[in-house]
Order: sequence, then C-alpha cells, then structure tokens
Amino acid sequence: MFSFDTQVRVRYADTDQMQVVYHTKYIEYFEVGRTDAMRHIGITYKNIEQSGLVMPVVSVDCKFIRPALYDDLLTIRTSLLQLTNDHEIEFHQSVYNEMDVLLCKGKVVLYFMEKSTYQKINIPTILFEKLEPFFKP
Amino acid sequence: MFSFDTQVRVRYADTDQMQVVYHTKYIEYFEVGRTDAMRHIGITYKNIEQSGLVMPVVSVDCKFIRPALYDDLLTIRTSLLQLTNDHEIEFHQSVYNEMDVLLCKGKVVLYFMEKSTYQKINIPTILFEKLEPFFKP
Amino acid sequence: MFSFDTQVRVRYADTDQMQVVYHTKYIEYFEVGRTDAMRHIGITYKNIEQSGLVMPVVSVDCKFIRPALYDDLLTIRTSLLQLTNDHEIEFHQSVYNEMDVLLCKGKVVLYFMEKSTYQKINIPTILFEKLEPFFKP
Amino acid sequence: MFSFDTQVRVRYADTDQMQVVYHTKYIEYFEVGRTDAMRHIGITYKNIEQSGLVMPVVSVDCKFIRPALYDDLLTIRTSLLQLTNDHEIEFHQSVYNEMDVLLCKGKVVLYFMEKSTYQKINIPTILFEKLEPFFKP
Repeated sequence: MFSFDTQVRVRYADTDQMQVVYHTKYIEYFEVGRTDAMRHIGITYKNIEQSGLVMPVVSVDCKFIRPALYDDLLTIRTSLLQLTNDHEIEFHQSVYNEMDVLLCKGKVVLYFMEKSTYQKINIPTILFEKLEPFFKP
Repeated sequence: MFSFDTQVRVRYADTDQMQVVYHTKYIEYFEVGRTDAMRHIGITYKNIEQSGLVMPVVSVDCKFIRPALYDDLLTIRTSLLQLTNDHEIEFHQSVYNEMDVLLCKGKVVLYFMEKSTYQKINIPTILFEKLEPFFKP
Repeated sequence: MFSFDTQVRVRYADTDQMQVVYHTKYIEYFEVGRTDAMRHIGITYKNIEQSGLVMPVVSVDCKFIRPALYDDLLTIRTSLLQLTNDHEIEFHQSVYNEMDVLLCKGKVVLYFMEKSTYQKINIPTILFEKLEPFFKP
Repeated sequence: MFSFDTQVRVRYADTDQMQVVYHTKYIEYFEVGRTDAMRHIGITYKNIEQSGLVMPVVSVDCKFIRPALYDDLLTIRTSLLQLTNDHEIEFHQSVYNEMDVLLCKGKVVLYFMEKSTYQKINIPTILFEKLEPFFKP
C-alpha cells in the first residue's frame, strides 16, 4: 500500500455563506494530494503531461462528514490500496483537520490516456516502477 | 418522479489546461440545477436558509463520461426518483451538451438541518407539499 | 459607444463566509459580460481562438462598492468607449443588482495576440467591422 | 516598510485552456499572501473576524505581465508602504516565478468595518501595534 499526507490551508475563497468550506473544494484538495504524492515519489503530473499523456478524472465518490473551516490547516491523505497495471488508477483520499477529525473521504478514479488521441493506455512504466516498491510483500 | 432541466454556458474560468471543463465544475453546475429546479416549483434555497434551515451536501457520486468544452451550452437535468419524508434528499443529476450527448451523471445527497444547532430535521412541510404532486400515481 | 447588458445569477459557490460574493467572482462575471457582448454582435471568443488568436487579460482595475448576495440576479454591463485599431482593447464593466444599485465597476484591458507566437497583433478585421457601426457619428 | 513573502503552488484547477493561470486566480493568491503576512506578525485574519470585525476588499488594481504555469512554485510578495491609522489599508502585492520573473503586480485596498453594522472603523489597535515596529525610522 502506498500512502502520502500533504497539507492545505483553507483560503477565504474556499468558504461559502454557510461559513464552511464549499463541498467541491475538498475534491480540488484531493488533486493537490495526488499531485504532491506523485512528486514525493519522484514524478510530477507535469512530467506526465509533457511526455504526451493525460490523466483525466473519470469518477469521484465523496462523503462530507464534518465541515472544514476558514484558515484550518488540513491534512490530505492520498492512498493506493493496490498497484494497477492497466489504464485505470484508483486513489483513496481523506481530509483531516488539526484535531485529527476526519472531515471527508472519497475515491477518485483516473484513466491514463494518450494526449493526442484520447486512447486509453496502460500505466506508464516510469510511474509503475516508482510505485512498485510500496507493494512488495 | 420530478425532473427539471436548466442551462449553463461554460465559462473560460471553468476550463483547465486539458482544454476541457475542470471536473469539480460539473458538481458546481449540479447545484445550479438543484437551485433552478426548486425555484421552478416556487421555493428558493434562499428562502429555505432564511427560514432557519441549511441543506449541506453530504455526498456526491459522479461519473465523468465525455468532456464539456468552453462556450458549450449545457443542459443540467435534476431529478428526484422518490419523495423523501425524512432528513435526507437524494438528487440524480446529469449534464448534456447541445448534441444531447451525456457528459456526466451523478447523485447528490443533502441533509435538512437546523441552521442554529446543526440538528437533522425532516424535509420542511412547504417543500414536501410543493414536491408531492409530482409523485401522485 | 458600444454597450451590452447580460445577466448572471449568483451561485452558492460564489459566496464566502462574509455572506456576500467573493471579490474575484465579479471579475469572472466581467468575462461572462464580454463573452456575451461579443456573441451579441455575431462573433464568439471561441471563434477568435479557433482562428489562431488569443486575448489574454493584461490588466484589471475594479472597485467593489456594495455586496452582491446569494441568488441575486445581477446585470453585467460591458461597454467600449472607443474603437481600438491596435493590439489593445479596453472594456468598461459594471455590475448592478435587481434594484439597479451599482455594486462594482471596473476596467479590463486585453491584448490581441497570435496563439502560436504570443506576438501582439492588431484587432482582427472581422471584430473591428462588427464594432465599427457602434462608433459611427 | 513591511514586506513578507509566501509561496503558492499552482494547481491544475487554477489553469485555463490558454494553458496558463486564469487571471482572477492571482488575485486569490494575493489573499493568501496577505493572510500569511498577518499570521507572520502574530495575528490572523480569523482572529480579526472573531473579534467582530471584517475586512472587505474595496478595490483591486492588477497588471498581468507574464503567465504562471501549472505546478509553478510562485512567490507572493505582500508589502505595506506606509502604516495606516484610519479605516483603510493598502497592500502592494506581486507574484514571481521560480526564475524570479515578475508575473503580476497589484494594489489591494481593504476597509476595516464592524461586522454587525458595516460601519467603517479605524485599524484595530492590536494590528496597528504589530505593524508599527516595521515603520520606525
């Protein structure tokens, strides 16, 4: 299993008039989590796009449990429960506040695709090799 | 069953560098759909908040099927498959482009809560009564 | 002089915890105004990009006078005080609520540029010709 | 003079189909800069709101000079050229990329107001006292 934590500070722009974080913002934080998790293992999503691939999000499931508040320093946890070897990768993601209360959890599925043709392709070797060590018994 | 269609024009701000609509934006469009659907039956979400309630989103499930593009005039379909009589309401939502291609579909669950206490309450009578005629056999 | 009014309904996502519209959102509404103004005279910004040009925003000046509220139906006024014949176009923009109260006004300058080289170019002839009749004495 | 630098990583959500950061996002980054600058001197905007004040943005002037790109690690510089003793505070703000290229600069004016009445008030003593040492000759 692979898991990585990153932090995001809630901006004023992220709140709504219910005085909590607007629900779609957590899903944007998820992306920050995925991006930082990839950077941590030595590959950036920017590199991936530069190599002629894209990774569109194809589904999001998300439960909003407790509200995040303005200026909260949130922890975004990004995990892979298994290593993919096809065109689809599934991230489990969750958000905690500074008291370690779970605010939100979800699952985000992305495809690997060729940028020029939008054909599905298998996970790039370079990414597979970076992830493989986390799934060794 | 209750169903209502509303339209949203894709803004430049809604696109990302993949040159399609950023995935969380569809979930924001869903909210436009719910708001307009409620206005159509004679009740606004603004009224609901003014009467001392809030309706936080507690879950979102969403599949992204085909991309929406800048300046597309999208149709947002908002449906209730059944009438709730408790604290939870489940909307089915989908997005179509001008060629009537399904771009995205999802399910959004909201709670009815008292604004001052964040206690769950049952659907307000006024909203229930507006919806009831759509579910008469 | 050329002037065009369009309408925008304030979304929940546009509000912040001050319970008013977040300040950068008005500047996004300005873009909706410019886009609809261009569509009204028979040319879309989408067409302009398809013809190989881009129109990046190079400056924004904006005064926020009164707050817009959730669900307000705003009028966005987009005006050109003079017709440009060079690489720069200056829009005057303002936002009014349903009681015709001025909420915000600003000035937005954009450049005409070649998409492939980012070289400044003069206003495209097709746009100039659409605008010219509004500036005839 | 008071000046403080903070860093923001460009998110995918911040880009648009011109493949650069959408112009209003820089103005949102400015707010991150102001917030972190205040935190650095020992006062948070959150505290200010909790004490019954609000600080609405009343004007923004901004020049966009060079584009920021996805995944850029930007430096947001937030400066006060003079110490206010009335209801208005003017921040000078600029954004640099990792090569220290100036991307954007602007001026943001905010008012100090009572939250309950929206009456202008002078800068709170606690904030004035934190800032004063930076303006001693």
